[in-house]
Amino acid sequence: VNSPSYFLQKVEQAIEELDLTGRPAELYDPVRYMMQLGGKRIRPVMVLLANDLFGGGTEDALPAALGIEVFHNFTLLHDDIMDKAPLRRSKPTIHVKWNPDIAILSGDTMFVRSCQLISGVNEKYLKKVLDLFYKTAIQVCEGQQLDMNFENMGSVSIAEYIHMISLKTAVLVGASLAIGSICGGAKEEDTEHIYEFGKNLGIAFQLHDDLLDVYADQAKFGKQVGGDILSNKKTFLLLTAVEFSNQSDRAELMTWMNKKEYDQDEKLSSVIKIYNKNEVKERTEKEMEKYYNLAIRNLNSISVDQESKKMLSDLAQQLMIREK
Amino acid sequence: VNSPSYFLQKVEQAIEELDLTGRPAELYDPVRYMMQLGGKRIRPVMVLLANDLFGGGTEDALPAALGIEVFHNFTLLHDDIMDKAPLRRSKPTIHVKWNPDIAILSGDTMFVRSCQLISGVNEKYLKKVLDLFYKTAIQVCEGQQLDMNFENMGSVSIAEYIHMISLKTAVLVGASLAIGSICGGAKEEDTEHIYEFGKNLGIAFQLHDDLLDVYADQAKFGKQVGGDILSNKKTFLLLTAVEFSNQSDRAELMTWMNKKEYDQDEKLSSVIKIYNKNEVKERTEKEMEKYYNLAIRNLNSISVDQESKKMLSDLAQQLMIREK
Repeated sequence: VNSPSYFLQKVEQAIEELDLTGRPAELYDPVRYMMQLGGKRIRPVMVLLANDLFGGGTEDALPAALGIEVFHNFTLLHDDIMDKAPLRRSKPTIHVKWNPDIAILSGDTMFVRSCQLISGVNEKYLKKVLDLFYKTAIQVCEGQQLDMNFENMGSVSIAEYIHMISLKTAVLVGASLAIGSICGGAKEEDTEHIYEFGKNLGIAFQLHDDLLDVYADQAKFGKQVGGDILSNKKTFLLLTAVEFSNQSDRAELMTWMNKKEYDQDEKLSSVIKIYNKNEVKERTEKEMEKYYNLAIRNLNSISVDQESKKMLSDLAQQLMIREK
Repeated sequence: VNSPSYFLQKVEQAIEELDLTGRPAELYDPVRYMMQLGGKRIRPVMVLLANDLFGGGTEDALPAALGIEVFHNFTLLHDDIMDKAPLRRSKPTIHVKWNPDIAILSGDTMFVRSCQLISGVNEKYLKKVLDLFYKTAIQVCEGQQLDMNFENMGSVSIAEYIHMISLKTAVLVGASLAIGSICGGAKEEDTEHIYEFGKNLGIAFQLHDDLLDVYADQAKFGKQVGGDILSNKKTFLLLTAVEFSNQSDRAELMTWMNKKEYDQDEKLSSVIKIYNKNEVKERTEKEMEKYYNLAIRNLNSISVDQESKKMLSDLAQQLMIREK
């Protein structure tokens, strides 16, 4: 079995060689720009790792791996329009650098390209792979819509939040691993286990992301620490604070969220103080560990020798201690 | 062989029965709204007619027919955002009735649903159908981007215009017929002929659309006659007028296009006067006939008895004399 870094190199090279040219330039320049912004490339690496685990050759799963990465970047592109995000990986977003119409249409084009790439899998697995891919794509849309709905909702329960991040983030991690497994010829049961492994890991990953926003070391973190707090984003941390704090803490949180003008550092330190008082960090870590442990149990259920699974368990562990 | 009206009924019923429910409602309400706005359903009917022509059963091609119609409506939905269109079939557009974010995301969802439906074809034709569908979807995006580019271009040649409508409109008509044929078990060569028939017919259809905007009978026409003239849309008529008129007519056209404030009826009658003087109607009809005749030649090349093709040639003829 090969390592994540080996597959990362394969993925980076394949993205480099991917033909994303065409006319008119207004449509394809943003597509290449988006794909060249970089990123951790976790999902395509997972496709290849899972495929390798079941004895598939890299070439069997590379088109699907690229398709998943192009699809993921398509969702980021359209999400950035909806979130009115000015920056993506410290660079101007497409709707800012070009315009929203071009962002919509080059996103649509990326989605079709992702379908084209995914349909490059071995024909005997095509229908199975497509069924899972399309189902997942629909769920990702549903997750994004729920996320947008949450912005306008007075209260969101922790269960609703976990459901939302399952759809928006976790199912694509599960599907990446499952699609890789299918391409590698895995048994139905093992594909299900690895899907659940990825889904639970994806939830833990997102909770870790929520944590990093507040508790990351600014020197190592790519974004502004506390960005979610300043934008009143309903993260697991905020929802936990609301759920477990007393009436006066809750009222103070609400006051900060409703303030139109404030000193950023003052808002941050006040909210974090409430978080700390209510053990929000520890509660989030506990939830994260819960899903991480579920994931490891799913991984253990796969009918492959434990030694071969080490690449996936190591990767899972790394994702839980990353600092950005 | 069955008639277009028989298949239209099949399509209408299948759209009625199509499951477009799901959560959250903000995502699926617009999808159902869009699909229930109606329309001529020409593309899915063509899928079924072509399938029937080669002896396929309706059930073999119905999923693909629905997929093509959902895809077509997805493109209308996203185009309406980009064109800032307030109305679609006399009803508020999705980005107006809901908002642009919901319009983007419910459009994305429709696109995935169209892929799901299309992948319901017989597995032995799946790869072939998908290859053509995805290629066509990319071309439709390219056509829409070209159309948007034209708005900001000083001059557009007639050749560029024909290329744009080929991509934006005609290839999907060709692909509808070709996909139906593939599902019906047509030979490669016949699939190519019917694709070209559809593509040429699609160009003629769009030229007829451009004509109707100016020369339709307002009592029978669904939209405001002259809408393209008032919005300075670079249609075949306008480009023909620019290409064939003398310097003074061209200058007058430019004056009308640059005027910010004007009397609508005065602008319409002045522009139409220039059109009439330069035989724009006749020139457009001539170009339309050219593509119509090419289409009929393509139809004649298909290796099926002429009698069976009558449904398609009748439909083609009807499309050329429609009044809305």
